[in-house]
Amino acid sequence: MPKEGVSIQVIRRLPRYYRYLSELDSEGIEKISSTKLAVMMNSTASQIRQDLNCFGGFGQQGYGYSVAGLRTEIGKILGLEQQHNMILIGAGNLGKAIATHLSFEKLGFKLTAIFEKDEKLIGTSLRGIEVMSDDKIEDYVKENQIDTAILTMPKEAVEKIIDKLYACGIRSYWNFSHYDISKKYLDATVENVHLSDSLMTLCYRITEKNQIG
Amino acid sequence: MPKEGVSIQVIRRLPRYYRYLSELDSEGIEKISSTKLAVMMNSTASQIRQDLNCFGGFGQQGYGYSVAGLRTEIGKILGLEQQHNMILIGAGNLGKAIATHLSFEKLGFKLTAIFEKDEKLIGTSLRGIEVMSDDKIEDYVKENQIDTAILTMPKEAVEKIIDKLYACGIRSYWNFSHYDISKKYLDATVENVHLSDSLMTLCYRITEKNQIG
Repeated sequence: MPKEGVSIQVIRRLPRYYRYLSELDSEGIEKISSTKLAVMMNSTASQIRQDLNCFGGFGQQGYGYSVAGLRTEIGKILGLEQQHNMILIGAGNLGKAIATHLSFEKLGFKLTAIFEKDEKLIGTSLRGIEVMSDDKIEDYVKENQIDTAILTMPKEAVEKIIDKLYACGIRSYWNFSHYDISKKYLDATVENVHLSDSLMTLCYRITEKNQIG
Repeated sequence: MPKEGVSIQVIRRLPRYYRYLSELDSEGIEKISSTKLAVMMNSTASQIRQDLNCFGGFGQQGYGYSVAGLRTEIGKILGLEQQHNMILIGAGNLGKAIATHLSFEKLGFKLTAIFEKDEKLIGTSLRGIEVMSDDKIEDYVKENQIDTAILTMPKEAVEKIIDKLYACGIRSYWNFSHYDISKKYLDATVENVHLSDSLMTLCYRITEKNQIG
């Protein structure tokens, strides 16, 4: 059980632990020390112990962690055994990449429908799901229990549709646009992916290195 | 000029400042106080002042920041006026999304070539750039000054190609795979985008909210 007030920095490290443990598990490794895990993850043993202690700790001093056990526990903390119903809005290149790229079911979600306004794309299918007109979002969400929307459209398109989504009861968003949902809807759970921010950070790091080097 | 030892957390916030300032600038707003900027960015005035002080500070107490001036300065710190030559490897759905989605030139980069191993995609074109066979990467990189590669293939494919890329002299990577480049090449500059980590974080946040609510 997570203790109250676990910081978002710790939370954001959990998927990474889960990913590395899944890898170790698939390689048949049963036990790992925090020291070895730290080397693997380019972290420190004390950071790992500190992070896991936020959730009650899982290792026995001197015995290391059970890989499968710790993986299962972190999966439970993340809630990955759940299947939050999710719709994707935007079946352009980015939507297509996301629909085909990710193992939603292993990540706590089930992609149930895809919507798009471009008529050329309506009726095509992605991941075996037919792309529907975005006029049908409201009816679909009312008839199905949807809590999450993936938004792959540009900012302006999100701005136009967000009130409708919120009014339908969708409170959780995986947002690839620069539209700031949290500012308008304080109770929404929003995970933003700003690809351009990531690229600018890379640019800074190259530039800085060139100045030093 | 950045002071030495600016933390990566501060660096990661710079693109976000740049993004908000670009927006204000395009709306014709000339001056902004750290307090107003903080409200807009869901941050605090003291955080903003502290971050900007890492680079020498730019405001005059009580006068606020010049929007265009601060935007230009942050752009310079990020090195966005540069044009790091960049190649994209992988022209599948994710590569396609990235090639078509981003304004590389505004983000410090120039996408000069796209490579792919799938023969069906070789010869097609993205963003006006012809997709070439990945056999040609070495020759291309030797003839052109390329410092950065975008990797949109799965982990196993990156594992196979990374030595070749490094041997060609590419030292900077925008990596969408789970392959851990930094672990093998300590001097590489790597910016990872782990979409599945982001989705797991969203899952955690929904789950936690449901438990509390």
